[in-house]
Amino acid sequence: MTAAPSSAAAPAAPITVPVALAERSYHIRIGRGLLAGAGAAIAGLAPGARAAIVTDENLAGLHAPALEASLAAAGIAATRLTIPPGEASKSYARFAALCDGLLAAKIERNDLVIALGGGVVGDLSGFAAAVLRRGVRFVQIPTSLLAQVDSSVGGKTGINSPHGKNLVGAFHQPALVLCDTALLDTLSEREFAAGYAEVVKYGLIDDAGFFDWCEANWRRVRAGGPERDHAVATSCRAKAAIVARDEREDGDRALLNLGHTFAHALERLTGYDSARLVHGEAVAIGLSLAFRFSQALELCPGQDAGRVAAHLAACGLPTRLQDVPGGTGDADAIVEAMTQDKKVRRGALTFILARGIGRSFIAPGIPAETVRDFIARELAGA
Amino acid sequence: MTAAPSSAAAPAAPITVPVALAERSYHIRIGRGLLAGAGAAIAGLAPGARAAIVTDENLAGLHAPALEASLAAAGIAATRLTIPPGEASKSYARFAALCDGLLAAKIERNDLVIALGGGVVGDLSGFAAAVLRRGVRFVQIPTSLLAQVDSSVGGKTGINSPHGKNLVGAFHQPALVLCDTALLDTLSEREFAAGYAEVVKYGLIDDAGFFDWCEANWRRVRAGGPERDHAVATSCRAKAAIVARDEREDGDRALLNLGHTFAHALERLTGYDSARLVHGEAVAIGLSLAFRFSQALELCPGQDAGRVAAHLAACGLPTRLQDVPGGTGDADAIVEAMTQDKKVRRGALTFILARGIGRSFIAPGIPAETVRDFIARELAGA
Repeated sequence: MTAAPSSAAAPAAPITVPVALAERSYHIRIGRGLLAGAGAAIAGLAPGARAAIVTDENLAGLHAPALEASLAAAGIAATRLTIPPGEASKSYARFAALCDGLLAAKIERNDLVIALGGGVVGDLSGFAAAVLRRGVRFVQIPTSLLAQVDSSVGGKTGINSPHGKNLVGAFHQPALVLCDTALLDTLSEREFAAGYAEVVKYGLIDDAGFFDWCEANWRRVRAGGPERDHAVATSCRAKAAIVARDEREDGDRALLNLGHTFAHALERLTGYDSARLVHGEAVAIGLSLAFRFSQALELCPGQDAGRVAAHLAACGLPTRLQDVPGGTGDADAIVEAMTQDKKVRRGALTFILARGIGRSFIAPGIPAETVRDFIARELAGA
Repeated sequence: MTAAPSSAAAPAAPITVPVALAERSYHIRIGRGLLAGAGAAIAGLAPGARAAIVTDENLAGLHAPALEASLAAAGIAATRLTIPPGEASKSYARFAALCDGLLAAKIERNDLVIALGGGVVGDLSGFAAAVLRRGVRFVQIPTSLLAQVDSSVGGKTGINSPHGKNLVGAFHQPALVLCDTALLDTLSEREFAAGYAEVVKYGLIDDAGFFDWCEANWRRVRAGGPERDHAVATSCRAKAAIVARDEREDGDRALLNLGHTFAHALERLTGYDSARLVHGEAVAIGLSLAFRFSQALELCPGQDAGRVAAHLAACGLPTRLQDVPGGTGDADAIVEAMTQDKKVRRGALTFILARGIGRSFIAPGIPAETVRDFIARELAGA
């Protein structure tokens, strides 16, 4: 899966990645220009259904008209519901308003919710779909790189609590995911880089060859063309394989949290303020820390930890606690922020550590004191 | 299952009703005095788990201390969370506060939520358990007759929206249900009668012999003793059999809605104000209407419709639209209130009708106009 794709300029044919989850199985379709065919794809999936499109204020003008035209051409009646952009929309209040909006749009049990947006739109509307009338189907049309390679795949939906991120939610698999990679052309450098941190993660978890490919090809992924589709498809395939093994995160799925125990703590400490830190940036720091922590524990060669941070930094991503604008608080504050994370069991801290690039593993029972000492040394610039 | 139990005065041995749902299977235990053994039963189910008890302000003093003593004796650390009594607690705001309360109590993925209360406590805390950290286990200890025979069985959880009752929720099966029938001794006549309407419903759906038994034994069910346990167990067995066939209400489970399409509309029109109408009273009117509607459609003998209303009235329950304190609005208002019910599909009204006592069936596609005419005649006292 890590072979370089053809470098021909013509758009590649769409790629289909199956997600094998018994009666909840579905397909991810990846390619340039798929949005135009969304109506036909959805009509085939749910004949006669109505649809509600959930999107955010930034995307409503950018991509919603094309989706609506495609749905109308396929004979699907659709209502548009718009939320403010940003993590603050993953709130109890916005969840309640969205459920009521879907009910006002008369979405019934056989109808569909379509998430057109990034991770915030997908997580919030997926959760609303999971619980509206105790469950309606939903379709993801992710518009950010982060959502295409991570949040739209695997069925995790949810909102944030004052106690932490994604602490209230559901496992609710989409009926279809459409990744139109042309939609990523309009992303800012910062947004693209943030999503790219999750792409790199798949190489770091268990595919050293893909990490090598990323080092060689990241500029072409950014520029678009077949390398971008290859990066998205490889990421989706990697995530789908792990999710198929462990849908509800009782085991291996925790590998996907590589870098995330640190990342969630940093997001919490910066108040989910995207002006300071977006999720992918927190993940980039988290990945770098996970490898340096593994190095400090004498599990991972320093050379590998160095390569991880160097590649992320080359792509414009932060890699150190000191890179967080406004700071993070001290080591105790960071450890305290980690213990509200849902990967905590019976008070012990579980980390994903690595014996090298592509050699990650689940490490339960790491003493909080060990983590604290490592963070203190990082903050001291050691 | 409809044979009369022994009339001996000694408490019967606890009855166990299995609910067969593959890996989500569980047991309902029914008997006098089971609360004292709750701690041991729960410790056996979830060794080492913490527990959060969710209860309401009325029950906090009445039954929570006995449950806490039983949990403490079994070595289970428990936090108590109290909500105001009444349907108004099934709100988005209370849901958010309860989730945050469970997080503040450090309930993790392997811990337990225990619902000690009636349908409101069970529905709200079951929904919170379903979505907290994307799902934690929960135990139902229902304290009302309605909850023991209906809402605690079958995994439906949820809250109300301004658009209607139970429109936001999840299917989340409990890990255990403990029905201590002695807890029903403290219910008011009105509360007991309201729950009893759901007991009668099981006879009306598909067990004419049980309806006969109810007519003969309802005073002994009210008084307590083995007839009460028999009525609760027969009801739970009937519901469990239907739920096992159709967990997610794609088919037969809709039979459990006998009387409920009317009932939900009446509750909506009375603003879920329990001073005017509680759920079981709305169901009693709904059951009577469902049989008279079936009679009007020449499906059901008038004698059966008469017996249904006579038995419910004998037990102190309302049976006519005119019995709703403050009135219901006109026929158009009632039909409009029905069309927001979640049993509506593609605009057509689905009713549960009957060819006689114990002979109910699902009747999709009933024209709204037919319903409106029937209701108008009922309101005119025809």
